[in-house]
Amino acid sequence: MPSVAIDEAMRRAVLLAARGLGTTSPNPVVGCVLLDSAGEPVGEGFHAYAGGPHAEIVALAQAGERARGGTAVVTLEPCDHTGRTGPCSGALIRAGVARVVIAVPDPDPVAAGGADTLRAAGIEVVTGVRAAEAEAGNIAWLTAVRRGRPYLTWKYAATLDGRSAAADGTSMWITSEPARMDVHALRGATDAVIVGVGTVLADNPRLTARNLRDGSLAIHQPLRVVVDSSGRTPADALVRDAAAPSWIATAADVGAGPDGRVDLSRLTTELYRRGVRSALLEGGPELAGGFLRAGLVDRVVGYLAPRLLGAGPAALGDAGVTTLTDAIDLDLADIDRVGTDLRITATVRQREA
Amino acid sequence: MPSVAIDEAMRRAVLLAARGLGTTSPNPVVGCVLLDSAGEPVGEGFHAYAGGPHAEIVALAQAGERARGGTAVVTLEPCDHTGRTGPCSGALIRAGVARVVIAVPDPDPVAAGGADTLRAAGIEVVTGVRAAEAEAGNIAWLTAVRRGRPYLTWKYAATLDGRSAAADGTSMWITSEPARMDVHALRGATDAVIVGVGTVLADNPRLTARNLRDGSLAIHQPLRVVVDSSGRTPADALVRDAAAPSWIATAADVGAGPDGRVDLSRLTTELYRRGVRSALLEGGPELAGGFLRAGLVDRVVGYLAPRLLGAGPAALGDAGVTTLTDAIDLDLADIDRVGTDLRITATVRQREA
Ligand SMILES: NC(=O)c1ccc[n+]([C@@H]2O[C@H](COP(=O)([O-])OP(=O)(O)OC[C@H]3O[C@@H](n4cnc5c(N)ncnc54)[C@H](OP(=O)(O)O)[C@@H]3O)[C@@H](O)[C@H]2O)c1
Ligand SMILES: NC(=O)c1ccc[n+]([C@@H]2O[C@H](COP(=O)([O-])OP(=O)(O)OC[C@H]3O[C@@H](n4cnc5c(N)ncnc54)[C@H](OP(=O)(O)O)[C@@H]3O)[C@@H](O)[C@H]2O)c1
Repeated sequence: MPSVAIDEAMRRAVLLAARGLGTTSPNPVVGCVLLDSAGEPVGEGFHAYAGGPHAEIVALAQAGERARGGTAVVTLEPCDHTGRTGPCSGALIRAGVARVVIAVPDPDPVAAGGADTLRAAGIEVVTGVRAAEAEAGNIAWLTAVRRGRPYLTWKYAATLDGRSAAADGTSMWITSEPARMDVHALRGATDAVIVGVGTVLADNPRLTARNLRDGSLAIHQPLRVVVDSSGRTPADALVRDAAAPSWIATAADVGAGPDGRVDLSRLTTELYRRGVRSALLEGGPELAGGFLRAGLVDRVVGYLAPRLLGAGPAALGDAGVTTLTDAIDLDLADIDRVGTDLRITATVRQREA
Repeated sequence: MPSVAIDEAMRRAVLLAARGLGTTSPNPVVGCVLLDSAGEPVGEGFHAYAGGPHAEIVALAQAGERARGGTAVVTLEPCDHTGRTGPCSGALIRAGVARVVIAVPDPDPVAAGGADTLRAAGIEVVTGVRAAEAEAGNIAWLTAVRRGRPYLTWKYAATLDGRSAAADGTSMWITSEPARMDVHALRGATDAVIVGVGTVLADNPRLTARNLRDGSLAIHQPLRVVVDSSGRTPADALVRDAAAPSWIATAADVGAGPDGRVDLSRLTTELYRRGVRSALLEGGPELAGGFLRAGLVDRVVGYLAPRLLGAGPAALGDAGVTTLTDAIDLDLADIDRVGTDLRITATVRQREA
């Protein structure tokens, strides 16, 4: 079979996988394309939601007998454990595929081993095809599983001179409506939204994912997390409403650091335990500084409004950096215009241990 | 003659004009294309440096007798006064052109009147062709002449969170070498560079336009201006060296505002009087705040480094804005990557009077 068919099938599988983004946690996104023995596509599928069928099962159901002697092209190593669905390795063996092509191995010790099981059954296993693309498409889940904590995106909105409010505290709205709608889309594709109690006391936000035009709630709502060492979140705070689950994470719940405040590293471990694989840190400046200082931020999304203030609170508070050589370095990934604003997406460069 | 030939000639004239940027002050940049009576290009020219021949004269010299009965296509209304060179209106009349096509009228009362003189001599005059492009190409000079003060660009360098130094004051270098080389190119294309005495005392900069690789000076050096109410610039400050002219602008020289400091509006008027049409304000934060508050900034060029500090001096100091609705609004023009940094070019939205 020409390798171009395999390559093209993997490209398609990566695209399919992306359709599951936001609804598969705590599972990864996965896409699968089945080729028959002549290299013709005979089935495809993706993992759409946790508890739903895995990508390989969807594709095998479509292909039926035509899978026999064919090739399964899949973005992630097929699972080997019996969870809510049976192991995909077994299903592929039973269907009689001759070859399985995998982009990225499964880093999850519970699910891994699929490739070995397939090989033991006499199936040819090829790995690493379009690995970089498949990795990028699954970056949140892969990073979370490797580190045992959610993939964390810090989102902020500021003026070009780095202010997130004016001197008198006014901050509604620094950015344009399209930028704020974009934030709601980010919320809808993440498992949890995190804020500090300072933001709750100042702004009383809902933190739901909504359609800003009509106020309607998105289908998927993130867990709303307030980092609140001593439980100062008011009983009638909107973040406690019934629109979405919420968790007021106190030092008593999570454990405290040396300063008596919520230990952020333990907070992220606990969120992972609760199935959170991706989280959106929405501020404020003080909590963002705490997460950055602790090395817990993977990605930064900044909405920069083309305005200048020259005074007012800074977008980012103390992150433990005192001299330039200790600055937190980022790699720019994307720069987009959203409404009249600039959206800057960057990844945090990991420091030497 | 097909209007497409005229349009194409003006497009070419605008490109030609741009070659003079940085060396024509206090004159504008101007480009000219001459077409013969059949619409064929027979000469072209641009104004290369103050004191050198005007664009029309260069083009007429090339065309010789072929200009007779033809069309002169020129980005700016031909001058009507006898300066260092004779009036271009007279030269066009003597050359016997039948028609003059102009993009933008001359706003300078001393030089204007060329179109009227041409019409009075029986020449057909057409205006407004590719006016927006020609205006953009000459924006610094046109704005300066209309307002009687230099076109002012505020340049700053900062982290994504708006800091221009770390908490301990370290700031070399926040941005990458390509970004710093870009600043030297900006200096080389401007008539004056302005800083506050705070920057001189803190950094002792040279403020020359240099090749950062070998330290060699650019051909064109801007006037170096230090805004220094009481003359605190040290006698041995590098900004006073012989590499380029400099002016320590004190309150005694310029006049003082109500706060006793240099009156920035009068400073800009005086710079205009001295022939400065474009100026680059290089900070620091306090002086930049003063210029923005006074409404004297036309354009902002920000070099944003993909780094976070969370502490340290802000890129912009008090600009007189206390509430969000009074923010200084900008229009994003260009977003470019320069080395590892982001360069954001934006124009300052003029406020209602
Ligand atoms: N522009 C934006 O993107 C944006 C986004 C969000 C908020 N904001 C603005 O930011 C302001 C609030 O920000 P803020 O900085 O005052 O408050 P914050 O960052 O929202 O919350 C800070 C609080 O979090 C709690 N916390 C618990 N554990 C912590 C830890 N380990 N490290 C750091 N903090 C910890 C602390 O209170 P306890 O010790 O009592 O727990 C701390 O005072 C509001 O004005 C809001 O409008 C802006
Ligand atoms: N990142 C960047 O792009 C950048 C660029 C330049 C500088 N910097 C940094 O900025 C720091 C210096 O900035 P700075 O804010 O302290 O000083 P500054 O803005 O360079 O100079 C401020 C001084 O200018 C004088 N001034 C005179 N008339 C004024 C007026 N009408 N309005 C405002 N100021 C007037 C005042 O001193 P008098 O009253 O005595 O005249 C004032 O103290 C340095 O650390 C430097 O490294 C950063």
